[in-house]
Amino acid sequence: MIEGVGHMPKAASQLAMGDFNQVLVLDLIRRANGQVSRIDLGDRSGLAPQTVSNIVGRLLDSGLVTEGAAVPRGRGKPPRPLTVNPAGACAVGVHLDPATVSYTLLDLAGGVAGRLRRRTPPGTKPADIVAQVVETVADLTGSCGADPDRLLGIGLAVPGPIDDSRGVLLTPPQLSQWHDVPLRDDLATAAGVPVLMEKDVNAAAVAEVWAREGCHEDFVLLYLGTGVATGLVLGGEVWRGRSGNSGEIGGVLTTDDSGAPLRFADRVIPGDLICQARELGVDVPEVDPDDPVAVDEAFTRLVLLAADGDPAAGRVLDESVTAAGAVLAQLINLVDVDHVVVGGPLWSRVSDRYLADLASAMRPRLVDRDDVRVLPSVQGDTVTAYGAAALVMNRFLAPRPGSLIGA
Amino acid sequence: MIEGVGHMPKAASQLAMGDFNQVLVLDLIRRANGQVSRIDLGDRSGLAPQTVSNIVGRLLDSGLVTEGAAVPRGRGKPPRPLTVNPAGACAVGVHLDPATVSYTLLDLAGGVAGRLRRRTPPGTKPADIVAQVVETVADLTGSCGADPDRLLGIGLAVPGPIDDSRGVLLTPPQLSQWHDVPLRDDLATAAGVPVLMEKDVNAAAVAEVWAREGCHEDFVLLYLGTGVATGLVLGGEVWRGRSGNSGEIGGVLTTDDSGAPLRFADRVIPGDLICQARELGVDVPEVDPDDPVAVDEAFTRLVLLAADGDPAAGRVLDESVTAAGAVLAQLINLVDVDHVVVGGPLWSRVSDRYLADLASAMRPRLVDRDDVRVLPSVQGDTVTAYGAAALVMNRFLAPRPGSLIGA
Repeated sequence: MIEGVGHMPKAASQLAMGDFNQVLVLDLIRRANGQVSRIDLGDRSGLAPQTVSNIVGRLLDSGLVTEGAAVPRGRGKPPRPLTVNPAGACAVGVHLDPATVSYTLLDLAGGVAGRLRRRTPPGTKPADIVAQVVETVADLTGSCGADPDRLLGIGLAVPGPIDDSRGVLLTPPQLSQWHDVPLRDDLATAAGVPVLMEKDVNAAAVAEVWAREGCHEDFVLLYLGTGVATGLVLGGEVWRGRSGNSGEIGGVLTTDDSGAPLRFADRVIPGDLICQARELGVDVPEVDPDDPVAVDEAFTRLVLLAADGDPAAGRVLDESVTAAGAVLAQLINLVDVDHVVVGGPLWSRVSDRYLADLASAMRPRLVDRDDVRVLPSVQGDTVTAYGAAALVMNRFLAPRPGSLIGA
Repeated sequence: MIEGVGHMPKAASQLAMGDFNQVLVLDLIRRANGQVSRIDLGDRSGLAPQTVSNIVGRLLDSGLVTEGAAVPRGRGKPPRPLTVNPAGACAVGVHLDPATVSYTLLDLAGGVAGRLRRRTPPGTKPADIVAQVVETVADLTGSCGADPDRLLGIGLAVPGPIDDSRGVLLTPPQLSQWHDVPLRDDLATAAGVPVLMEKDVNAAAVAEVWAREGCHEDFVLLYLGTGVATGLVLGGEVWRGRSGNSGEIGGVLTTDDSGAPLRFADRVIPGDLICQARELGVDVPEVDPDDPVAVDEAFTRLVLLAADGDPAAGRVLDESVTAAGAVLAQLINLVDVDHVVVGGPLWSRVSDRYLADLASAMRPRLVDRDDVRVLPSVQGDTVTAYGAAALVMNRFLAPRPGSLIGA
């Protein structure tokens, strides 16, 4: 089931060995936020009382669940509330961005137990990244007091394109020396835990689904980072594509003020916005587009200048939102959803403008449709690392009726 | 469960009353093409032998299934093969197109028992259409010897936009006198059977899934009719959108030879192609764009002239395929599927050019991706009426584990 790993820690192997019913019961306990007893679990799962009791016993023994004091309620034996033990298991999400590597540690209750960021070293090589990730994961779990034996695995969010079946990064645009890097298996071997790899935008979409549980079943995620992409969440599931590479929206066309066509990416990614700003005389440094850290810093300066009232800097950012509206409207017309979520590594720097203007920028191009709502990412800039960790939680904790029916 | 119907015929009510297990068993029998016995059904369904026997007994009694002669096989009681009785139930699909109303009668085995086409009367009113549909459905079932009491229902495919919850056609572009027409319930009342309504492109997508069973789980359907639209089939399911109005691709931009932007619809729908051909001096009649029958006939003439070697007529059609390739590539980059299916009312007239050139027209705009295959619609021009009938079959015959899990 889990590719690219020899040794498997205790918590992961316990959960991986657990049958479907065990995962179902654990998921019900997690969702109930402490408002569930064995009797309730029988009602909600449809399982026999004895089966529920056996499963709960195993979950208590393994430290994944705890049982509270009895709560008197009518006649009969008073029920005892069950809750997941946050320290019972954990997962680390790693977002490998060309400019920054971000880490998020999730506990079993889905809470963020810790976060870290490291600048991606310039000219970094795959082996350096693997060593840095292993070390940083150990630092993070250690500093949070998490038991390494209870680490379920590492979720790794990377820039596309990926070869999903082999866990390989193909030719990430801003990591020019990287070609066909088997990062998933290299990291799994070095870390000694299972590693799941996903394209960055789709990891971010998983984060939004995980954090908004049950609230927003169908939406488009606009992902703003070193590049731009969109995630599709349909029926509460992230559509990751046949090859794990869905979401390429950079080539979709819109038009500028003069009616000339332009590619969406040329109007929204930081490298291009900096060039446009310089052409308009904005005081931002010239940057090498292959130096993602320099691009990121120059973009921050552009945003600060706009916030300070520099009209040309503001215009560049405003036109970016207008282009995003025109392109997203085309996508909304295609997939028919009623809201858009915006997030990604750039989010906190541009959120004011997007929340103010994106919905109205979409409006003129929507076909037979009322306004589409625009919601901010639940996790903001760190959505991708959070989603990568949630991928691991999903793999071990979410009951998957679909895959069972097909089995 | 079924909206807008008072009286329900015998076959429909029997199936509607059937529990999930009965639907599951009937579906297994249907898929097995006569290669299944009661024992096999027990193995495949996971149901107890007595349960299977009871269900099979009910299906035999109601005439939905027949049992063949015993086939000796090893020791023990020889198994008797079960097959669905094609005449046990049927469904009619109606495709209301501004130019033509098409009808398809499906039997319980999924076979096409009959087809009919009627020109849509010019300036037609909703009440006239309802009367015409009721009369034509009776003609079709009668001429095919189908028992009216075994008609499960009518599937109605209509041009969007629709109000899905109320079963209302909002403002179909080529039916200028129609606004807010409650066609679903009006037809159900007049016909005395359940009516399911779906946007045309999504009914066509259902047809492709139904006919290709299990073969092609993820694809984009390019639907060529009086208008143009796309259907999304993801994980074997038609994504119909939050409001049943997904698929609007006409506003997506591409560029012409000079690099100027143009809307996809302006390069692909028959009315516009006829205008372009006339501007190039092609001998096609001037048509009123609000007269769909005249547009359809002029389009047929344009296709015939191109087939006879008229270079300008050929160029108009070729540029249409080039535009389709450029636009579909954008969609493929977004959703990451590896094939496109093309169909709809225009299909047989343009299939040669699309099959020859669409894949190469997509290629230059695909991001990090090999060729995308182009497949012809399984049902060709009549795909939409077939899909509308399949909607009804799906409603009564397809086990839906998803909806059960959520229940």
